[in-house]
Amino acid sequence: MSDNRFGKLFTVTTFGESHGPAIGCVIDGCPPGLAIDASEFAADLARRATGKSRHTSQRREEDAVEILSGVYQGLTTGTPIALLIRNTDARSKDYDAIAAQFRPGHADYTYHHKYGIRDPRGGGRSSARETTMRVAAGVIAKKWLAGKYGIAVHACVNQVGTLRAEMPAVIDWSVVEANPFFWPDAAQVPELEALLDATRKSGDSLGARVLTVATGVPVGWGQPIYGKLDAELGAAMLSINAVKGVEFGAGFAAVEQPGSRHRDLIGADGFHSNHAGGILGGISSGQDITCQVAFKPTSSLRLPGESLDADGKAVEVVTTGRHDPCVGLRAPPICEAMMALTLMDLALRHRAQCGDVPAQTPRVPAGRN
Amino acid sequence: MSDNRFGKLFTVTTFGESHGPAIGCVIDGCPPGLAIDASEFAADLARRATGKSRHTSQRREEDAVEILSGVYQGLTTGTPIALLIRNTDARSKDYDAIAAQFRPGHADYTYHHKYGIRDPRGGGRSSARETTMRVAAGVIAKKWLAGKYGIAVHACVNQVGTLRAEMPAVIDWSVVEANPFFWPDAAQVPELEALLDATRKSGDSLGARVLTVATGVPVGWGQPIYGKLDAELGAAMLSINAVKGVEFGAGFAAVEQPGSRHRDLIGADGFHSNHAGGILGGISSGQDITCQVAFKPTSSLRLPGESLDADGKAVEVVTTGRHDPCVGLRAPPICEAMMALTLMDLALRHRAQCGDVPAQTPRVPAGRN
Amino acid sequence: MSDNRFGKLFTVTTFGESHGPAIGCVIDGCPPGLAIDASEFAADLARRATGKSRHTSQRREEDAVEILSGVYQGLTTGTPIALLIRNTDARSKDYDAIAAQFRPGHADYTYHHKYGIRDPRGGGRSSARETTMRVAAGVIAKKWLAGKYGIAVHACVNQVGTLRAEMPAVIDWSVVEANPFFWPDAAQVPELEALLDATRKSGDSLGARVLTVATGVPVGWGQPIYGKLDAELGAAMLSINAVKGVEFGAGFAAVEQPGSRHRDLIGADGFHSNHAGGILGGISSGQDITCQVAFKPTSSLRLPGESLDADGKAVEVVTTGRHDPCVGLRAPPICEAMMALTLMDLALRHRAQCGDVPAQTPRVPAGRN
Amino acid sequence: MSDNRFGKLFTVTTFGESHGPAIGCVIDGCPPGLAIDASEFAADLARRATGKSRHTSQRREEDAVEILSGVYQGLTTGTPIALLIRNTDARSKDYDAIAAQFRPGHADYTYHHKYGIRDPRGGGRSSARETTMRVAAGVIAKKWLAGKYGIAVHACVNQVGTLRAEMPAVIDWSVVEANPFFWPDAAQVPELEALLDATRKSGDSLGARVLTVATGVPVGWGQPIYGKLDAELGAAMLSINAVKGVEFGAGFAAVEQPGSRHRDLIGADGFHSNHAGGILGGISSGQDITCQVAFKPTSSLRLPGESLDADGKAVEVVTTGRHDPCVGLRAPPICEAMMALTLMDLALRHRAQCGDVPAQTPRVPAGRN
Repeated sequence: MSDNRFGKLFTVTTFGESHGPAIGCVIDGCPPGLAIDASEFAADLARRATGKSRHTSQRREEDAVEILSGVYQGLTTGTPIALLIRNTDARSKDYDAIAAQFRPGHADYTYHHKYGIRDPRGGGRSSARETTMRVAAGVIAKKWLAGKYGIAVHACVNQVGTLRAEMPAVIDWSVVEANPFFWPDAAQVPELEALLDATRKSGDSLGARVLTVATGVPVGWGQPIYGKLDAELGAAMLSINAVKGVEFGAGFAAVEQPGSRHRDLIGADGFHSNHAGGILGGISSGQDITCQVAFKPTSSLRLPGESLDADGKAVEVVTTGRHDPCVGLRAPPICEAMMALTLMDLALRHRAQCGDVPAQTPRVPAGRN
Repeated sequence: MSDNRFGKLFTVTTFGESHGPAIGCVIDGCPPGLAIDASEFAADLARRATGKSRHTSQRREEDAVEILSGVYQGLTTGTPIALLIRNTDARSKDYDAIAAQFRPGHADYTYHHKYGIRDPRGGGRSSARETTMRVAAGVIAKKWLAGKYGIAVHACVNQVGTLRAEMPAVIDWSVVEANPFFWPDAAQVPELEALLDATRKSGDSLGARVLTVATGVPVGWGQPIYGKLDAELGAAMLSINAVKGVEFGAGFAAVEQPGSRHRDLIGADGFHSNHAGGILGGISSGQDITCQVAFKPTSSLRLPGESLDADGKAVEVVTTGRHDPCVGLRAPPICEAMMALTLMDLALRHRAQCGDVPAQTPRVPAGRN
Repeated sequence: MSDNRFGKLFTVTTFGESHGPAIGCVIDGCPPGLAIDASEFAADLARRATGKSRHTSQRREEDAVEILSGVYQGLTTGTPIALLIRNTDARSKDYDAIAAQFRPGHADYTYHHKYGIRDPRGGGRSSARETTMRVAAGVIAKKWLAGKYGIAVHACVNQVGTLRAEMPAVIDWSVVEANPFFWPDAAQVPELEALLDATRKSGDSLGARVLTVATGVPVGWGQPIYGKLDAELGAAMLSINAVKGVEFGAGFAAVEQPGSRHRDLIGADGFHSNHAGGILGGISSGQDITCQVAFKPTSSLRLPGESLDADGKAVEVVTTGRHDPCVGLRAPPICEAMMALTLMDLALRHRAQCGDVPAQTPRVPAGRN
Repeated sequence: MSDNRFGKLFTVTTFGESHGPAIGCVIDGCPPGLAIDASEFAADLARRATGKSRHTSQRREEDAVEILSGVYQGLTTGTPIALLIRNTDARSKDYDAIAAQFRPGHADYTYHHKYGIRDPRGGGRSSARETTMRVAAGVIAKKWLAGKYGIAVHACVNQVGTLRAEMPAVIDWSVVEANPFFWPDAAQVPELEALLDATRKSGDSLGARVLTVATGVPVGWGQPIYGKLDAELGAAMLSINAVKGVEFGAGFAAVEQPGSRHRDLIGADGFHSNHAGGILGGISSGQDITCQVAFKPTSSLRLPGESLDADGKAVEVVTTGRHDPCVGLRAPPICEAMMALTLMDLALRHRAQCGDVPAQTPRVPAGRN
């Protein structure tokens, strides 16, 4: 019951504080024989990294991953894979002023009362810095899922504040990757930039919505009753910093759909719609898995906020560290990683009980996604 | 990694199919010395039960709980508590026609392909009948939480289809319990009844939104990073049949809130708002825990729907069994149970690491909820 | 972390007290499609049962197993299998006298102090009655292991008190099954009977040693470092009541073997010896898995013993219930069950990580066992 | 179900190969507020280290532990504690010759067939090098157990080959620590040295028996039925390389004890004997926990041994790396660590269910140990 571990069979245990010596993870349960090289982590880590545009935190992390174990002559051996990243650009002095204060909207208050002690430097353990290791571990999961099943996992930002993306009928992921906001409609990017600039200048921050899609997932993954695909994936997403909600397929909109519209009919050409988000009874249906996540606006603001210090005295908190005006803009690689880690874990759990070969291969294609 | 088990320290393992001999559960990890009597389950089970109005399934379940173990002379002994309910009103014949067909929007398709075999009677394992045992186990968790911490857990339905509840400033839970829809505004009940009657007559169904609130939760519960209170509670809610989304505090609305509004400021009288839903960094803040869940409309409709049979042939499915036009209407006791089970589990997990006494007692009240 | 659960992927959660309404278990993780009938439990339960000769407890248990879930039309469906046995011959009055006393050598003392409350009837949860469900669950594991891999699991008693069995070069398991003591040498049975009669008359009791052997186990099962086959199997055996030690292959005798003798050399015809007990580095080698377990003598004696009551006052305890003079004599079916449950769990764990097909098939036979 | 993780609430996940870049571990679940300094690991690591006398492997490891996370200003924060040791004296060339051969008695054969790939350098993951991290983690557990409960954990070697230690009535642990063999009788040390010298010269190796004792353990630790103290401790010991058996209290000798002698009577001054090894019904009784473990003789011998290579061809294997003639001589610190890790884990598990304060404090002292 290691609470810093994700997954049950493909497990990722992360460690490290934002401004400590290092962050890292131990991946246990990886199938042997998978080709992994330390250079493969760079691309996704760069997608997640801060400092890549003026719209994200100006902390510059090298994020060079060292593989400490579990890989021999370029192949995984089935033993634990430990990954390490040294923290290099940690300016802890920025946090001296607030070491004994509770920044509003932050975990300072709860860590203090839970543990009686906390590392205040950069948020310590509660910093989003931890998600770096999820992305690194996700690289391995993505590679295995792609190689063995042809699964692809993508994510985009489809809302920032009140600005909603014009969603194309089919998302062009190259468009998403071509702008620093993971935004699916190139035409809206200038508008989004203007919004972010205005927000940054005002000292305020914005929330965001992220859509994550997995294609190619075979029918049958997910472990009812309490290991349902949506339950596990929901927990995965909700474990990401700043997430306040998660939904699958039609999600909250399903409340307003009549049943005759919501249920996805099936024809000889497969499903006719995908309001279920590719999940029925907690098990993948073969359609695309679609999941949306709500990110709250960053609580670290230059605008002063009323709060308390550890002695219970009223203070006014101003956050002076380097922070993102919209944390959701860096979230797509993290959401992809959590989707990939969840799918890989459930793939192994399915295989344990039901074997490598699917019990029944569907006689029809999965249909519309 | 029993996937039919909920919880890590206060664990509930459920078993049973909708039309099998019995359903039941084994509760392991309950603290010793808690007074429990078989009669205590009746109230919550009645709240969840079908057949209590014309708006829910007409299946009548006795739901008499037998305690098989773990209780001696009226007190829990610390050993596993097994609960059993015999299935008495199971009309399996209703399902003969669809044994080899996949009802649209149901788990039939995925169970078939995952396991290669399924019990089609009443949905088998995927039936909401399983949630009966969650409610029973939840009774024990609620009692312990109330007795030891003064925690209360309540839920209401605040939306059915497009009808949204007029939410009072403070919810009066006696109003919620006084109508069969768990609706917080008595004045709207006739309108809701009319909506349900019309829907039932049309053969269609409706989704619903359920709000669950826990009061009195102490600061400090929740295990970062992957055992966060919201992650665990989200998984709990998403494991309930028909749930398509879950959100905490402001939830998806947080996307549109500027950070200066979303972050909950703290004064000498406690928090000034509760957009966080009582959770900061995955740990309870001492405020009310608030969680909303989206239930999809029932997929079991009298209206015929296009689908396939196990041989891949096109069929038209008509559901003739007894079903609810709006499953969400029976969900509040289930949501309460999952909230209580999650909180109790996290209480024990907190106690394991940090001890009985909180590391730091807050010097201020939790404030507005 | 349900502590009343055995296994990680093929899990067995047991419940029930010796003199409560019932005992039972929930088996979660069983592969679908395995044929199981309620009548199949009878044979092994009879082998374990009391009352079958004058040398075991005269409590007569019907031990009729009811399957409550997880089996449809005679096949497992992949959902939890719940098994139930009602307790019918429970004479709780026998225990009234000792409800507030700690029987020496029993769990009374520790349960009382751990939980502050205990069910004293027949030892409550600490009674060997619980092992009935292990044997029932073991029937399912044995059947799967035999059907899929040709694995057979057998156990015999090879020592009672100071009487050691004359072990044949190859154990004839039909001889073992032909006497009520699971003794491998028919010629010694009269001597053993005389020993047991004398012990029973004296009011004293005897320890025993049980040898368990699994044949046909493929190479590759066992999960290093902490899920080693011997670690898991050791824990399984040590969880059985009255066990004080466990060893594999040469076991404690290995201390006195020089390395040149202990290490099992390998030739073209396979291993030349099996001092390792079929386990190298925690992983099965393809040889027979051999495991020996020490059972202490029953502590329930007619001979009075000095002890205390719950108030700390000195008392003299005499056990008047029905008890076995040598509990080890009923242990072989339990040891077989724990071996089978362990192997099945590790088979699924291996399959999860490495797939159905072995990574490398040995080019030589396993050799001598 | 990370199989490279020990413990359920106080968890230690280890990683690293003998000749890879580093070994390390992540400790999750440690209570906050414990003072830990990197220098505290040195003493126990030195006790375990190779190269300290001519009787152990001449590999010289620096074993400098770096704390990467979880400690702030000298105190644990409740977040994961990562420990790292770089491998510095790894002579991988020694192993080139045997990369494609299976050393008899080693895990080479089973790793090859399980995973299809293995790191042969120094035994890779199956090397005893991994136990370094257990010892490091054990330092933390020992410190917590000592500080909070006054528990002490000690181990000695009480048999090497056929040489048995003359056990004093009460073990003087300063004697044990005063010789490089952890031998409790100083007078026998020259005889032991002569035995080891002769063995090393012959190219052969010897087994050993290690006794581990924990004093001060309160009554009530251990989680029946499958988390019994002896089951968990047994698994812990059996997970150590080269262990072939484990026993508690009287252990295998209990087979030959009549019940009237084995059962430990209780008087007003506590227990009169400790044949149970401090464990009744899987729960600590308050007496000393005593556990003995059998270590097999090293399989790495200069004496040639018949074996196969990966192609199934017969080869003669000679081990030329640096190895211990008696691995058991370095085992006491490892056994202590596993005892401490087990006790700490069970302490937290007990506290989760039953709270900080014992349900019932014994009215008598624990008595003879």
